[in-house]
Amino acid sequence: MAMANFPPSLQTNKNKQDPDTKAKIVKDVISSQPAPNPAEDIAKERARTNWNLKEVHEFLEGNEAKSTEILRLYQSIERDPILQTRPEHFDITQKQERELVAQRIDKMARFIEIEPYAKFRRRLQLMTVIDPSMGIRILVNLGLFLNCIRGNGTQKQYDFWAKKKESGIIKQMYGCFGMTELGHGSNVAGCETTATFDPETDEFIIDTPHIGATKWWIGGAAHSATHTVCYARLIIKDVDYGVKTFVVPLRDSQHNLLPGIAVGDIGAKMGRQGVDNGWIQFTEVRIPRFFMLQRWCKVDRKGNVTLPPLEQLSYISLLEGRVGMAADSYRIGARFTTIALRYAVGRRQFNKTGGPQETQLIDYTLHQRRLFPYLALTYAAAVGTDRLEVEHNELLENLDRGLKTNDKLLLKNTIASTKSMFVDSGSLKSTLTWEASNLIDECRQACGGHGYSAYNAFGKTYNDWAVQCTWEGDNNVLAMSAGKSIIKTVQQILNGKKVKNSTLEFLNDAPELAKAKKAVIRVKDHVDDPQRVLKAIASLISKTSMDLIPQSYQSWDAIGAQRVILSKLRCHYYLLETFIDRLESQIKANSPARPHLENILKLYYVTNILGPFIGEFLRYGVISPNVAKYITNVYPQGLCWKVRPYVIGLTDSFQQPDNFIHSLIGKYNGDIYHNYLAEVKSVNDPRNPKAPYSVALEDMLNRASLDERQRGERSEEAAAILSK
Amino acid sequence: MAMANFPPSLQTNKNKQDPDTKAKIVKDVISSQPAPNPAEDIAKERARTNWNLKEVHEFLEGNEAKSTEILRLYQSIERDPILQTRPEHFDITQKQERELVAQRIDKMARFIEIEPYAKFRRRLQLMTVIDPSMGIRILVNLGLFLNCIRGNGTQKQYDFWAKKKESGIIKQMYGCFGMTELGHGSNVAGCETTATFDPETDEFIIDTPHIGATKWWIGGAAHSATHTVCYARLIIKDVDYGVKTFVVPLRDSQHNLLPGIAVGDIGAKMGRQGVDNGWIQFTEVRIPRFFMLQRWCKVDRKGNVTLPPLEQLSYISLLEGRVGMAADSYRIGARFTTIALRYAVGRRQFNKTGGPQETQLIDYTLHQRRLFPYLALTYAAAVGTDRLEVEHNELLENLDRGLKTNDKLLLKNTIASTKSMFVDSGSLKSTLTWEASNLIDECRQACGGHGYSAYNAFGKTYNDWAVQCTWEGDNNVLAMSAGKSIIKTVQQILNGKKVKNSTLEFLNDAPELAKAKKAVIRVKDHVDDPQRVLKAIASLISKTSMDLIPQSYQSWDAIGAQRVILSKLRCHYYLLETFIDRLESQIKANSPARPHLENILKLYYVTNILGPFIGEFLRYGVISPNVAKYITNVYPQGLCWKVRPYVIGLTDSFQQPDNFIHSLIGKYNGDIYHNYLAEVKSVNDPRNPKAPYSVALEDMLNRASLDERQRGERSEEAAAILSK
Repeated sequence: MAMANFPPSLQTNKNKQDPDTKAKIVKDVISSQPAPNPAEDIAKERARTNWNLKEVHEFLEGNEAKSTEILRLYQSIERDPILQTRPEHFDITQKQERELVAQRIDKMARFIEIEPYAKFRRRLQLMTVIDPSMGIRILVNLGLFLNCIRGNGTQKQYDFWAKKKESGIIKQMYGCFGMTELGHGSNVAGCETTATFDPETDEFIIDTPHIGATKWWIGGAAHSATHTVCYARLIIKDVDYGVKTFVVPLRDSQHNLLPGIAVGDIGAKMGRQGVDNGWIQFTEVRIPRFFMLQRWCKVDRKGNVTLPPLEQLSYISLLEGRVGMAADSYRIGARFTTIALRYAVGRRQFNKTGGPQETQLIDYTLHQRRLFPYLALTYAAAVGTDRLEVEHNELLENLDRGLKTNDKLLLKNTIASTKSMFVDSGSLKSTLTWEASNLIDECRQACGGHGYSAYNAFGKTYNDWAVQCTWEGDNNVLAMSAGKSIIKTVQQILNGKKVKNSTLEFLNDAPELAKAKKAVIRVKDHVDDPQRVLKAIASLISKTSMDLIPQSYQSWDAIGAQRVILSKLRCHYYLLETFIDRLESQIKANSPARPHLENILKLYYVTNILGPFIGEFLRYGVISPNVAKYITNVYPQGLCWKVRPYVIGLTDSFQQPDNFIHSLIGKYNGDIYHNYLAEVKSVNDPRNPKAPYSVALEDMLNRASLDERQRGERSEEAAAILSK
Repeated sequence: MAMANFPPSLQTNKNKQDPDTKAKIVKDVISSQPAPNPAEDIAKERARTNWNLKEVHEFLEGNEAKSTEILRLYQSIERDPILQTRPEHFDITQKQERELVAQRIDKMARFIEIEPYAKFRRRLQLMTVIDPSMGIRILVNLGLFLNCIRGNGTQKQYDFWAKKKESGIIKQMYGCFGMTELGHGSNVAGCETTATFDPETDEFIIDTPHIGATKWWIGGAAHSATHTVCYARLIIKDVDYGVKTFVVPLRDSQHNLLPGIAVGDIGAKMGRQGVDNGWIQFTEVRIPRFFMLQRWCKVDRKGNVTLPPLEQLSYISLLEGRVGMAADSYRIGARFTTIALRYAVGRRQFNKTGGPQETQLIDYTLHQRRLFPYLALTYAAAVGTDRLEVEHNELLENLDRGLKTNDKLLLKNTIASTKSMFVDSGSLKSTLTWEASNLIDECRQACGGHGYSAYNAFGKTYNDWAVQCTWEGDNNVLAMSAGKSIIKTVQQILNGKKVKNSTLEFLNDAPELAKAKKAVIRVKDHVDDPQRVLKAIASLISKTSMDLIPQSYQSWDAIGAQRVILSKLRCHYYLLETFIDRLESQIKANSPARPHLENILKLYYVTNILGPFIGEFLRYGVISPNVAKYITNVYPQGLCWKVRPYVIGLTDSFQQPDNFIHSLIGKYNGDIYHNYLAEVKSVNDPRNPKAPYSVALEDMLNRASLDERQRGERSEEAAAILSK
């Protein structure tokens, strides 16, 4: 295939010299040019690293203990013959991938029995980056299924299924999450599966009323799951109580389907081929009444329904997935910026300086402007998503403690911070999964043709990743929801009710920020001040929200696009705030890492926030027009030049080992071409250069002439005969 | 898997009602809700179409004859058991896909023998949309290989290989295109394969000097090709004459590799799995001197080299691929906007009006703003790429005629229009392949989870498509190149030399446009005037170019990003100009189609040009700030409302049949759920609900306890014994 680009400027024929025909003497024809040596370039640039990689890794991961645990887990995964990656994994079929995933689940099930749960969760988080199908297949059981039971079931119900029946250690049972229906994705409250109480037998009858209510996409349903939590409408004596959750067995202990259950494989997907997603139809499936999850809503023997307070807290179980996906975005970003930047240092193309060698890709201005913003974003995403994880854990701990001790004040505060956690996790999940998707794509394009080879990991990762923008809250729906909460929060503050126990407390200044006439960023120096940039984002959020409040009275729908923008700005405020704080608190003033991190911080906000939203900043007068060009052009380019010499060290600081990077052109040693050719040969043995269907090709090429195949019926001879 | 979104606004516990627990009486529990009926919605909206579909199809395709030929070819393809699409094709492995592609090539080879070449090319263009692997595998031979021979070889060389040896009808020989090397993609002039003349034997010796010069990505090399055109440095008596082209046989007529040729399969890729891309290494491979393509550069028996004029024209053969890819972008856009808009009409989700049914996706403001701009772009791309195809054909005809008759004036004019054809094809190829990539992705996300199912075509198409942004001129490299030509053209005009015989003649006004102080678009009414918008784009291109000229003296590299913007603006100028012209010339004033096409035209330019580049338009004072919000918000939303009722008819006008659309949720009848479930069941037979590896899963779940598997070694009993 051609990846050509010729100069388009055609000369007229006065100039007889072809531009690439500068005749020159060559000494030794066979090796007229030295072979490319990307490993040397990368090693040379690596030697520039003048900081402690571990220090920066701890900065990214949050603390020493977490950093050390992660490095240890990388090693454990790399050495494990089942969990480790192999280049031939990019060649396997759907069936093989599903089997590989099953083997890995089995191996993970052995770890969960013997290591602390927090460590296992971290192992799972890392494995999810290199095998997202395995990740989601385990999370369907340990995350969605068991979280649903924990959140909606009583303690006894949870203990029964998670502990006594051992699904918590992936044993005896395997749960799946029966929420989505063919006709109902995001709108869970619109589910149409029914759970009708039969007072005679004290059972619920689970039924799929019509095709639209077929459970669809259910991960694990096609082949693995023994049970599902089924989202179904609670119907008692012809009264519809809305959607509740029920544990419904699908398969017996011999793994045979139970009567009344129809399941099927939903088949091929864009990615995550390793997951056995299925559809389920229930026909008069009876379950005991006590299989309904009854932490909040209870049904007694006579069919009376009680709804206790705090049922809303059952939604909290949805946060975990979103927090996890935000964190995934950081690790995916680290992995792919590492690949693309190593390649950009090692690869040479064209010659812009007239020197003896072609120019390294990384030295092209546009190449820097394409990749460095993503590098900086990845740093910001690291610290921001680490904070989100910590805050989410605190929230769950406080909630458990509050419920256990019935501490009203603690519960009240926790509910307040739950509100902002919904905004934060929704805005980070949507913004960062979108950004990661763009990042993978841009990094792939920046590796040219080699980005298209499966063995460099872009294709499979992109395909596996894409669904992160859709599931667990479609990104647009989530972002609109976060945007709505922000507008409502600003409105509440305008009404005199300040926010407390919330990460949105910065909005308490909204009335003053919105009123301010003077731009926050007015001169070039202001762009260099992170605190001022933070204030500028807060101002833009405040002014936009104020602007939208009157429109929201008319129609929330009509301001959907602006709500998405607010959600993105909120994400960036969160990331930037965290980045600034952590730089102050965790990196010593004289640390050699500090100037590099400061450059990355500034590059992050100028290329990911000020630049992309410059239109909004200008329209609302938060930035003066006279600094606009400085922001979009001069300032970021200056930072790119500062960052340029250290990109190898800055990506090495992510500390992802080769087996985790899992890309032939992205390996640490930088010996791009040898790594690549050797593995391609090893996976595709060149000893048989014929395709299995080669005979068909030969038959086609060596076919008889058309006339012969037409039996001479259309020949002139035939015409002569037939025309007589 | 979960596609959930719960409202994030948690109430405090004062409100004990769960929002989705509004108890209500239901009459009949099993069928408490009617099944969704998307087919009815789509049929109802289809009935609104008040124009002649064929008229709009002719508008899109250029003329009646072309439109009719395309509709006939759709039918021919749909009926052919080998060429037609089938849902199970989304499930096949790489090996199966390659074999399917080979069968289709065989079938196409039978058509090429019996139908006019122009019709065959159109057939091939359409097949390329539904089977891009097949498309490129044929184009490697008929396009790249033979075009290279035609462009660089003598007439006798072309006649020999294309006609006498029948590669022109895919017979006897199969050519591949040996240009790209492992270490050299876009920079063809940097190729390092050598062709050394041996005056003793009158042969060239083809050699791969080192790993970096390994031919890489060569489509067809792994299994199909019998020959390649090899790009190699011509070396005679230790003098390097630069890169020339040589026909090198790879396999004999029994399809066995020739001595000195090493090839291998480069294996798995992100997409285009049906193509047998390979690598080639040459070791002392000897070919007769007359296998060098000698149209321009000739080597005589003694090794003397002559370079005649016009060698630069050999680059013209590169245009065809770019023109073709721009046209592909239109058809892909038509296919995927049809799928996403049919789904958006048929799918209901949430309820924003409080009516009896959920709301159709298409009625959400944000959904319109996500999809309608792409619909409008697709219309613009249709007319623009049709014009490009026509101009490219004229160019080749004029060139052939000029060379044949030695008509100096005609040749001079043709060379001038060749220059602008390089700019136009480069800017349309890069802009439209990027846009098509974004379009597929946005349409997929707009179909929610179902966009992720392989059977709805997004995943495979995206993967197959992605490489269009990289090959045949990397998009960034091509766009920078087009941008550079535009700046140079403006500079030339400033120097008093106007452009002639060029599509860039509009730049002759650049000096005046650039000088103008007054904004082109100053009041709301101006936005409604297509001619004024065209002028605004010309102004922006002129002002930007003027601004960049001084910087270009310092460094072309430093203005890479701005050159890409210029290229995109040039593409849009071309499209808009063509759209306006064709609307005037081809659609009658009283045609019912006219108001719809006018809305689409305006929606195209406001959402694809004025909106996205508003920052540039404002910065250069081409648009007044007071109309900015009108452009980004009010005006496009008004157009969306006008277009909204007619989207079914507007996509039906593309006239792509179901078999070509090849997407279960995108079929004409709109019976989304039945179409989808029925085919998923047919491809994935639900009669065996166990995975092939089910035993392994059962063994995992029913494994013995940890203590038992540890042989009781870690039991308290063991501890008691061991501690004694």
